[in-house]
Amino acid sequence: MAVKTPVIMLNVKAYEESSGERGLALLKACEEVSEETGASIVISPQQVQLAQIAGQAKIPVFAQHVDALEPGSRTGWVTLQSIKSVGASGTLVNHSEHRLKLADIEWIVSKAREMGLQTCVCTNNVAVSKAAAALSPDFVAVEPPELIGTGIPVSKADPDIVKNSVDSVMEVNDKVVVLCGAGITTGEDVKAAIELGSQGVLLASGVVKAKDPKAALLDLASGL
Amino acid sequence: MAVKTPVIMLNVKAYEESSGERGLALLKACEEVSEETGASIVISPQQVQLAQIAGQAKIPVFAQHVDALEPGSRTGWVTLQSIKSVGASGTLVNHSEHRLKLADIEWIVSKAREMGLQTCVCTNNVAVSKAAAALSPDFVAVEPPELIGTGIPVSKADPDIVKNSVDSVMEVNDKVVVLCGAGITTGEDVKAAIELGSQGVLLASGVVKAKDPKAALLDLASGL
Amino acid sequence: MAVKTPVIMLNVKAYEESSGERGLALLKACEEVSEETGASIVISPQQVQLAQIAGQAKIPVFAQHVDALEPGSRTGWVTLQSIKSVGASGTLVNHSEHRLKLADIEWIVSKAREMGLQTCVCTNNVAVSKAAAALSPDFVAVEPPELIGTGIPVSKADPDIVKNSVDSVMEVNDKVVVLCGAGITTGEDVKAAIELGSQGVLLASGVVKAKDPKAALLDLASGL
Amino acid sequence: MAVKTPVIMLNVKAYEESSGERGLALLKACEEVSEETGASIVISPQQVQLAQIAGQAKIPVFAQHVDALEPGSRTGWVTLQSIKSVGASGTLVNHSEHRLKLADIEWIVSKAREMGLQTCVCTNNVAVSKAAAALSPDFVAVEPPELIGTGIPVSKADPDIVKNSVDSVMEVNDKVVVLCGAGITTGEDVKAAIELGSQGVLLASGVVKAKDPKAALLDLASGL
Repeated sequence: MAVKTPVIMLNVKAYEESSGERGLALLKACEEVSEETGASIVISPQQVQLAQIAGQAKIPVFAQHVDALEPGSRTGWVTLQSIKSVGASGTLVNHSEHRLKLADIEWIVSKAREMGLQTCVCTNNVAVSKAAAALSPDFVAVEPPELIGTGIPVSKADPDIVKNSVDSVMEVNDKVVVLCGAGITTGEDVKAAIELGSQGVLLASGVVKAKDPKAALLDLASGL
Repeated sequence: MAVKTPVIMLNVKAYEESSGERGLALLKACEEVSEETGASIVISPQQVQLAQIAGQAKIPVFAQHVDALEPGSRTGWVTLQSIKSVGASGTLVNHSEHRLKLADIEWIVSKAREMGLQTCVCTNNVAVSKAAAALSPDFVAVEPPELIGTGIPVSKADPDIVKNSVDSVMEVNDKVVVLCGAGITTGEDVKAAIELGSQGVLLASGVVKAKDPKAALLDLASGL
Repeated sequence: MAVKTPVIMLNVKAYEESSGERGLALLKACEEVSEETGASIVISPQQVQLAQIAGQAKIPVFAQHVDALEPGSRTGWVTLQSIKSVGASGTLVNHSEHRLKLADIEWIVSKAREMGLQTCVCTNNVAVSKAAAALSPDFVAVEPPELIGTGIPVSKADPDIVKNSVDSVMEVNDKVVVLCGAGITTGEDVKAAIELGSQGVLLASGVVKAKDPKAALLDLASGL
Repeated sequence: MAVKTPVIMLNVKAYEESSGERGLALLKACEEVSEETGASIVISPQQVQLAQIAGQAKIPVFAQHVDALEPGSRTGWVTLQSIKSVGASGTLVNHSEHRLKLADIEWIVSKAREMGLQTCVCTNNVAVSKAAAALSPDFVAVEPPELIGTGIPVSKADPDIVKNSVDSVMEVNDKVVVLCGAGITTGEDVKAAIELGSQGVLLASGVVKAKDPKAALLDLASGL
């Protein structure tokens, strides 16, 4: 499934609140909000639920992570081939909680492109965003790690990192879509992020830990 | 689900032959052979299919790997909580293709025990088997890495490693069940493994790469 | 150089206070205290100073870490062969700040034994100490990670972990010497550690960060 | 010490032939060739000999690797501060045998720059060279991993990777010096590398494994 922009990417991480039945409920909330508002929403389920969720989702599903490995004798690792075989549309790459080697990011991005899978490379500052853009992924999502999970939106706490990442990425490869993340919880945060030049947000706790995830998503969607 | 011994543990790894629909077909083959022969069979599906397969399996399902992490803000990692929430009975730990730090093996084994999940710690020689036994997992599976995937059964190529692992494990903790693996493809190999004192086998390519996985499983089951 | 027990092992870590000239000053303090008091002291210098310090030391020198690799095309890794070639007597293995895979610990301990190098495997609890003992290193040093660098001595905060580690190690292999660490700063702490059954201590900040490292070492030596 | 270009960077790796006394002999060969021919030569000694060699070298000395860590409680890791304190001029970063995470490469390059240390980031293809250039290291050394140690020079086997890396790096940051490596053993290889637009070579076995390392260096220097 193609991902339209602007976009809200929901990374459900490995929270207890996003596992098992609760992971399925998050999918349902995303689907309803997407249908009701027309917002483009992508969900990244827990790794062990990828097939289960991609098998029924009406919205694009991204893996949270893949390993830089071909299919084969590789116990417990996740290949691009395996995520494609269960219906994922793409994958997050190099999230701040799952950093990868530069050569492996390049391998994953190139290989995914060949296979028709999309990639969103996460970065932590302007220089790294620029480096990531040189690899030509579909998305670069800049997230200052110190703001992740704080509820203090990057768009307020450090607007320059978003603006300068957009500029640096455009300088290297203007086909790359820049997202931003960290501390995003409201539609206002989304709006501010877009005004800084990004084309959407990557977020987790703002929805997963919300009392009412659907209400949180509706609010976020209002900012697109 | 409790695991009865002697047991055949099928680790489907990250082979193309075990992904997507073919992963589901392998589950079906295991279930049929288990039902028809009464053999105790455990399946370890590809990580992204764990929920999908554990959600429908009539036999115990083990994860191929878990990370030594509590649930939380941990993008792309697999927790014990997540595998339990989708119905897994346990997990492989420290497979030769996914080695873990000693302290993390201990954490996983202890935590899994508290949570009612079973663990099978993979080892590569007698000393490591003995060390693993000191952590009191449910299973220790000794597999000389150089024989994995060769079709040369450990029970013939290096019977002493099985025998001595059984002895060393018993010395430290006689409640631990010892399995063996590497190169196992036939019922004869299974029989030899059991005669050496193990209570079953851990295998992968012998079934996953077989032209007829069900036939391969039937042959293996005949050796129990 | 053989290591006599009871022993004080000084791990200087990667502190600014233990680098360059200050690393050499710490060696001198250890040598003086060893000579003046007869105390058995081992020093583990910063990795980049190992040859420099082992080349002139009058006391045994241990690497802080080695990698589980044979000599060869291995840029930036540290082999047992390289530490032996510059005069080290042994190595710490699996420090809580540098945890290793179980199979790699076993490889290092076995290979070091063949090469006439001593090993001190660090552990974090009783079960891990028992597992480490199964690998037959020269020393097992139990250190609860949460007490490291606190100045709260393990011998007071958690005496059972020392006592039970000694018992468990003895049960598996009574030739292994048990040390303890974490929060050790005074001779009294050393004395308490020995009364709990250990044969010495592994420490760092208590000396490295002391205003007068030699005075700190003299105090520690008084507890042997 | 500043590094003049064109340059020969000798990475002695962790070979038995480059450890202990033989590491000192390699330094001497480099110094003699540099003095006799005027060639700019940098040596990267084994990690445990860095202080010993940087303490006496008449040519610039680079670490083979540093960890992306501040000084502190970090047993067995190598900090930029520690290599500076013993007189190193810089460090290799991300060698194909010691790949690093993208965020860590950026951290090391930025921090080294602040501290007056030089960095040479190793890369494996054109896209990765371009990404590395975005981080503004002093040097980018492109080395196709499959040619390393073969004696088949990159300048012959894959001249385009050198040419295109130079072009891509220049596009992003024309202050970065591009080197190339893999399979370099003769002065002719060095000459070819320079004709392709690089400003020198990074090599190891061609000198370390040579019967007469000084003769090998003299030949290499003739190609500058």
